[in-house]
Amino acid sequence: MSRRDVLQANARFYSAFGGSDAEAMEALWARRASVACIHPGGPVLRHREEIVASWRSIFAAGGVHVRCVQPEVFLNGQTALVTCFEFVGEHVLLASNLFVQEDGEWKMVHHHAAATAARPAAAPEQASRAIH
Amino acid sequence: MSRRDVLQANARFYSAFGGSDAEAMEALWARRASVACIHPGGPVLRHREEIVASWRSIFAAGGVHVRCVQPEVFLNGQTALVTCFEFVGEHVLLASNLFVQEDGEWKMVHHHAAATAARPAAAPEQASRAIH
Repeated sequence: MSRRDVLQANARFYSAFGGSDAEAMEALWARRASVACIHPGGPVLRHREEIVASWRSIFAAGGVHVRCVQPEVFLNGQTALVTCFEFVGEHVLLASNLFVQEDGEWKMVHHHAAATAARPAAAPEQASRAIH
Repeated sequence: MSRRDVLQANARFYSAFGGSDAEAMEALWARRASVACIHPGGPVLRHREEIVASWRSIFAAGGVHVRCVQPEVFLNGQTALVTCFEFVGEHVLLASNLFVQEDGEWKMVHHHAAATAARPAAAPEQASRAIH
């Protein structure tokens, strides 16, 4: 279970999130581990059912065009934290996404996203993309 | 390593934070694990030295009167997440604090605090405290 696997799990999360894919989102969250979720400005959601329902509500309300930028992995054995920027229209947020291994896969146990004044460092390829 | 041990580690964090105790704060952060820290509105700090320096700067600037309210533990084996409200003057934030075990103690590997519109549920003893 490498750093790349973690990044792929994080990418699946943003694919489900941005694609309003409730089934994929539900599959991403751990089934046995303790889970929590803090949507921007919102309270702590603390049960799998409650968390999955919150995503279904977001998707039912039209979903969110979200783009994950500059994900970084902090790997500690069986636990992996990913921090990344979330671009949502003109809003920029920072997210902490926490994963643990369950049945040989990285599953989400925590998502905390909140507004930030920080901005991603301009990577060379990003600068290049902006020009073309 | 019980839930109570995790809460004690979290309490030590807020004691060091509110007391502007740089030594205690430094001792709390993991030495070998990957660490990250997101102060409210700020960027991702990603090395122990950088994180400890950020706390020293906060303390040198006069510190912060912070009160941890309604901590909740999400325990997953060797990893423990604590969510809690932070009361700072009139500001209310939500924090995700992540701990791992190192040398038989819970050490901090991540702190992400951000403003929230949520408020703690009024527990009976809190209501009672507010009255007296």
